Amino acid sequence: MNMSAASERLVVIGGDAAGMSAASQARRLKGPGELEIVAFERGHFTSYSACGIPYWVGGDVEERDQLIARTPQEHRARDIDLRMRTEVTEIDVAGQRVRARDLDSGAESWTSYDKLVIATGARPIRPEMPGADAPGVHGVQTLDDGQALLDTLARTRGRDAVVVGAGYIGVEMAEALINRGYEVTVVNRGSEPMSTLDADMGRLVHEAMEGMGITMVNDAEVTKVLTGDDGRVRAVATQDAEYPADVVVLGIGVRPETSLAKAAGLPVGQHDGLLTDLAMRVRGHENIWAGGDCVEVLDLVSGQERHIALGTHANKHGQVIGANVGGGYATFPGVVGTAVSKVCDLEIARTGLREKDARRAGLRFETVTVESTSRAGYYPGASPMTVKMLAERRTGRLLGVQIVGREGAGKRVDIAAVALTAGMTVEAMTALDLGYAPPFSPVWDPVLVAARKAALKVRAS
Amino acid sequence: MNMSAASERLVVIGGDAAGMSAASQARRLKGPGELEIVAFERGHFTSYSACGIPYWVGGDVEERDQLIARTPQEHRARDIDLRMRTEVTEIDVAGQRVRARDLDSGAESWTSYDKLVIATGARPIRPEMPGADAPGVHGVQTLDDGQALLDTLARTRGRDAVVVGAGYIGVEMAEALINRGYEVTVVNRGSEPMSTLDADMGRLVHEAMEGMGITMVNDAEVTKVLTGDDGRVRAVATQDAEYPADVVVLGIGVRPETSLAKAAGLPVGQHDGLLTDLAMRVRGHENIWAGGDCVEVLDLVSGQERHIALGTHANKHGQVIGANVGGGYATFPGVVGTAVSKVCDLEIARTGLREKDARRAGLRFETVTVESTSRAGYYPGASPMTVKMLAERRTGRLLGVQIVGREGAGKRVDIAAVALTAGMTVEAMTALDLGYAPPFSPVWDPVLVAARKAALKVRAS
Repeated sequence: MNMSAASERLVVIGGDAAGMSAASQARRLKGPGELEIVAFERGHFTSYSACGIPYWVGGDVEERDQLIARTPQEHRARDIDLRMRTEVTEIDVAGQRVRARDLDSGAESWTSYDKLVIATGARPIRPEMPGADAPGVHGVQTLDDGQALLDTLARTRGRDAVVVGAGYIGVEMAEALINRGYEVTVVNRGSEPMSTLDADMGRLVHEAMEGMGITMVNDAEVTKVLTGDDGRVRAVATQDAEYPADVVVLGIGVRPETSLAKAAGLPVGQHDGLLTDLAMRVRGHENIWAGGDCVEVLDLVSGQERHIALGTHANKHGQVIGANVGGGYATFPGVVGTAVSKVCDLEIARTGLREKDARRAGLRFETVTVESTSRAGYYPGASPMTVKMLAERRTGRLLGVQIVGREGAGKRVDIAAVALTAGMTVEAMTALDLGYAPPFSPVWDPVLVAARKAALKVRAS
Repeated sequence: MNMSAASERLVVIGGDAAGMSAASQARRLKGPGELEIVAFERGHFTSYSACGIPYWVGGDVEERDQLIARTPQEHRARDIDLRMRTEVTEIDVAGQRVRARDLDSGAESWTSYDKLVIATGARPIRPEMPGADAPGVHGVQTLDDGQALLDTLARTRGRDAVVVGAGYIGVEMAEALINRGYEVTVVNRGSEPMSTLDADMGRLVHEAMEGMGITMVNDAEVTKVLTGDDGRVRAVATQDAEYPADVVVLGIGVRPETSLAKAAGLPVGQHDGLLTDLAMRVRGHENIWAGGDCVEVLDLVSGQERHIALGTHANKHGQVIGANVGGGYATFPGVVGTAVSKVCDLEIARTGLREKDARRAGLRFETVTVESTSRAGYYPGASPMTVKMLAERRTGRLLGVQIVGREGAGKRVDIAAVALTAGMTVEAMTALDLGYAPPFSPVWDPVLVAARKAALKVRAS
């Protein structure tokens, strides 16, 4: 029997997308008389778009506050007891309570919970090397990071920028710094940028970036950050060379922030992310949920767990958690691994498995790569697009799609994302009834061209 | 046992998308020693994009020949015996032969076939009214039509254009004539333009067209074309009013061109289109195939036959027919009714069932309409988009989606097209892993926002 008068308390750790979506959704389902909600956030901001930081740094977005979807005040107006600048330092699972420290006063106290949501996010990978903490070296995970980087850009008015890492954050930051007038060098450990693509597709990104005046240094590891007399960064060194740098941006990637959860004995997987069930409950724990960048998610194509730090997943997790915490029912079945990004006018998209993912999953497959255009060839603005498709041998099941092109290329990956979710074969995809008109597509959409070629290859395999 | 030395003859009636795709695909599978291919085309052109005509008339496409995918010469170079300006006047099914007339010489002769492909296309609906044939009144179905219209535009350099019909051809022609500097009035029998949408979504198109300076006259039927002393059009009259017109474009739609097939006793359906099986064989006829604008197709959502004249279907039909004629195997399972078009910068898309389609199919459903944006709200160029979604009661199966918006709106309909093909529920759609980055989408894609709202409504139904 439900008791009224705040019979239950929900504690949320982390005030960004997953945590506050969960809190908001739970509040929609249960009023403050039924459910007390306490949320802890160690930073200065709530519910902001970290994905938007490169565009703020690059000047496409003018104000930091445009990236904030909901302020602490707005959350509080919805009866969420939000404690800013307050870091949870311990989870006592047996005692159903968390210890939190006010980062300004240093005061610590325990708060008990009936239900707990862990949304501690991810932490950036910082390379262990001399000079990594020098002024002028910046991460871009948080709004504070973005502001610090903008301060450096304003102060140095330099010429040379080095971006370490060529994943989506790296290429987006390369664009941002180009927009700010810098000479940009991207130093990349892999053989081609965008290791979320196969190397043959990454090669297309590489060539396009060079066409934009970005210097790509592949197969290179930054070993040292060199500083000047003022202690600020002046260059980065790899095993082979030095690259002058008035500013350095680290875009190496992130890891789940699960130290708190691990210390509490909660289960993490191979990627160090929390493991949950389909309702986003931490496995083995009836009253603890977790979502966002701190969890691993099931890859529906490979059947294996992955870690993907992406705001769209965090929001979905939050909705699912909030529904379940609030007495409703929702699940997050998993991902197919869709991602889209751009560098200047180059659009880059992927979904499903790369060749190495498919091999790791034990799959045999065929690959095809086709060139097509975004619109009918005769229509103004038709731009070339390369589509790579992987299909399982024998069954012909779609396994993955990668797209590199210009305007109109990126979001075409959604066609494949839905087809992957539905378990479609490439043969079935050839009959897909996709939107056609000359300003929107060739008469055979590029994804269909790839599907036709893949279907032929599967038949012959 | 197969005989060589052209043991079989394939006859194709109609030299556009479906017919010539079939011929080309069959030729790929069987060389001229195995299969003789004779194709008859009554016009001057083969394999052209009729869908591109509005953009040629409007000036976006400069040359007529850009719309021609493959010329008669190119087809002949692939060992297709293509007879231009030659009209098939009779199909003798029992005798396995067709009679054709050379339109220049008037000579007629019989050609026997082992296999026959009927790809006679569609014919425009011409209103029965005084003056409909006056100089200055134009259809836009063929390249010849387009050239004649361009000649009129060059000659009249007039001010006023009237477009009759507000379907996709009508709105595309309104854009073309705006681009040519005309004052454009669109006269429409329906209550709102784009009757392929529900009226509430058509209303958005109406408002946007008026914003572009196009005069929309709804609920009006053209009763008469008025001519001047020179015999050319000078105005059109409806039941209520007269509209001055230096040029009139008829964009009322098309019907299957099946008079030849019907005279031969071949089966047609409720829409007067040929009925085929899944391999595109005319029902009851082992050696006759049909495809393109002259056939009816199965609507996979409603389970009923429809007539849809669209180049992308015609090309798919041709591929399927060619594979089967050439000894391979392929099927065309049906359509979900996807269409996308634009008028100036307004993008209009639909897939699946409208409300009246769903009712006609005996379905009960919920509808939702949401407003969202094409990109993250803070990203430059984010433009508003309205998404309407229909879902079946109880099962929650997606039934249809309509989208009206600006750049980035139209091709989002593909997400729904694939989901419809896969029979997804709106609940399942809420978890779709669609491409997200601020330049491409809000963190919840507009289609997901609609799916979430629809899922809530289905649960409550």
